[in-house]
Amino acid sequence: MGLFTKDIQTFDDLFLHQLRDVYFAERQITDTLPKMMEKATDADLKRSFETHLRETEGQIARLERIFGLLGEKAKGTTCPAIEGIIKETNEVASDIANKAVLDAALIAAAQAVEHYEITRYGTLIAWADQLGLTEISSTLKETLDEEYAADDKLTQMAKTKTNPRADAVNAPA
Amino acid sequence: MGLFTKDIQTFDDLFLHQLRDVYFAERQITDTLPKMMEKATDADLKRSFETHLRETEGQIARLERIFGLLGEKAKGTTCPAIEGIIKETNEVASDIANKAVLDAALIAAAQAVEHYEITRYGTLIAWADQLGLTEISSTLKETLDEEYAADDKLTQMAKTKTNPRADAVNAPA
Repeated sequence: MGLFTKDIQTFDDLFLHQLRDVYFAERQITDTLPKMMEKATDADLKRSFETHLRETEGQIARLERIFGLLGEKAKGTTCPAIEGIIKETNEVASDIANKAVLDAALIAAAQAVEHYEITRYGTLIAWADQLGLTEISSTLKETLDEEYAADDKLTQMAKTKTNPRADAVNAPA
Repeated sequence: MGLFTKDIQTFDDLFLHQLRDVYFAERQITDTLPKMMEKATDADLKRSFETHLRETEGQIARLERIFGLLGEKAKGTTCPAIEGIIKETNEVASDIANKAVLDAALIAAAQAVEHYEITRYGTLIAWADQLGLTEISSTLKETLDEEYAADDKLTQMAKTKTNPRADAVNAPA
C-alpha cells in the first residue's frame, strides 16, 4: 500500500489508493509470469503460469472498468510490499540445477504473489460493500475467485510435483 | 524469500532457507505489532493486535524448536517480500484524522502480513510432508491454524468496524 500521507483522509481516498496498488501489482505480475514460465521445468507448472497470465490480463481489464465506474483514470501506484514479492520471484535463480527444487521455489514465490492479491482483493471487496459499490464489489469477487483457484492449483502442485526425495537430498549443503 | 543463489541446491537447503525467512518475518512482526496497537483507535482492534503479539511469541518459540529438531541454530534471513510488507504497516500514518479510515488501513496492512505468513507456512508444511518431517509439519500446522484464525478475525473487523459512511465520505479528495 505505502505512501500513507495526508493524501489519504477519507474512505474513498483509501479505496482508490488500494485499487491503484493492486493495478500496479497486476501489471508487474504480467511482466513477471513470462519469466517464471521460462524458468519452470515441469510442463503443468509452465501451463499453469501461462493460464494465470491470461487471467491476469482479464483482471487488469476488470480494474480498468472499475476505475471507469469511479470516474477515475486507471493508474498504478508503487508499493514496497508488492515490489518485494515481485523481486523475490525474479530472484529464483534459473541456475538451480535440481529441477524439483527450482520448480518448488517457483511455486512458493507464485503463491506469495497469489496471497498478496487475495488479501488486497478481500480488503477491496469489504470496503466496496461498505461504500455501497455493489457492481464494483461483484466485479472484484470474480477476480478473487480466480485468485483462490490459482492458489489452490499451486498448492496441489506443491504437494505432488516436487518429489524432494527423488534426487534432491543428501547433496552437499 | 530472496537470495536464490547457488547456496540453495537441495530441497533441504530450500526448506531451511524458508524457515529462516519466516523466523525473520515473525521477529519483525513482534517489533511492529506494538506500534500498530498504539495507532489503532478501536478497542477490539487494539486487543486483537495484542492477542496476536502473544501468539507470535509462541510461534517464534515453535520455530526455535523446529530449528533444534533439524540440528540447526535458529537464525533469520532478510527477504524483500516481508520487508516491503512490514514497511507498509509502519507507513500507516497515525496522522489520518478519520479514525475509521486509520483503523481500516491498519486492518488491511495486518491482513497483508497474515497472508504472507499463511503462504509461507503453507509452503513449509507441504515441503515438510514431502521430506517426511512429521513432527515439524504438525508443529507448523498449529501456527498456520492460528494465522488463519487471526486473518478471519481481521476480516470480520474489516466488514463491521470501519463504518465508512459514518463520517468519511464527501470530504474533499
